Amino acid sequence: MTKAKISLVLRLLAVGSTAAAIAVMVTSHETAKVLNLSFDAKYSYTSAFVYFVIAEAIAGGYSLVSLLLSCKPVFWRLVMMMDVVIAMLLSSSIQLHHAGWLPICGQVPKFCDQLTGALIAGFVAAAIYLVLLLCSLRSLFALKP
Amino acid sequence: MTKAKISLVLRLLAVGSTAAAIAVMVTSHETAKVLNLSFDAKYSYTSAFVYFVIAEAIAGGYSLVSLLLSCKPVFWRLVMMMDVVIAMLLSSSIQLHHAGWLPICGQVPKFCDQLTGALIAGFVAAAIYLVLLLCSLRSLFALKP
Repeated sequence: MTKAKISLVLRLLAVGSTAAAIAVMVTSHETAKVLNLSFDAKYSYTSAFVYFVIAEAIAGGYSLVSLLLSCKPVFWRLVMMMDVVIAMLLSSSIQLHHAGWLPICGQVPKFCDQLTGALIAGFVAAAIYLVLLLCSLRSLFALKP
Repeated sequence: MTKAKISLVLRLLAVGSTAAAIAVMVTSHETAKVLNLSFDAKYSYTSAFVYFVIAEAIAGGYSLVSLLLSCKPVFWRLVMMMDVVIAMLLSSSIQLHHAGWLPICGQVPKFCDQLTGALIAGFVAAAIYLVLLLCSLRSLFALKP
């Protein structure tokens, strides 16, 4: 497999995992009853999860665009610089704030499972970008005179 | 100023800001009284803040080592690849989990101010690594035949 094909496959995987992260996070919703008071658990009540969804959406959209751009040799410098920015955006979005939700996980286990799933998909997307960047750097080093 | 000097200055700044982030986070501590019950607020009670301190310590230590390594041309490939890893580690550590602490900030304002300060210093360190990476890429692009 050529380096260009590996990069295309990695970008496709990034599109898939960011889309999965968004879908799982956005559909997470559960209502629980505690002491006769019913309460709603929803991702949008926590700013950190809203940030997660926005970051995954930007990264997913960019990954799609970069699929097209990376075919054109004119754009490879721009794509590689943007890859760095997106990689850092992705890693800033997968946070440990899930820990902050643990006290309510006894009441809303399905909701917590979905959060964990979304965060894992986000983590996979960030890992894909790390591999993508290291691969690009390696091929760039090989070009060096 | 040559590119090598800019890189050295950026790495020195990264050492400074990670050290500041660790110092401010580790010394944050406050005791508050709520309804005659006194409670302790400490960074080490939250796993996300412990992760922050560990990530900043790794990044700070690496920045120091890279100051020496980046002078030796043999290591520049290794340094650039490690820069990518450290940049992603740093951006994963500056999290929005501060939001999770807001409810107690009325009781422990000094503690919360210190947390915010530490997170800002961590953010600065991540921004420095972003600039460092984009600069390295630019000079690498210039070398390309």
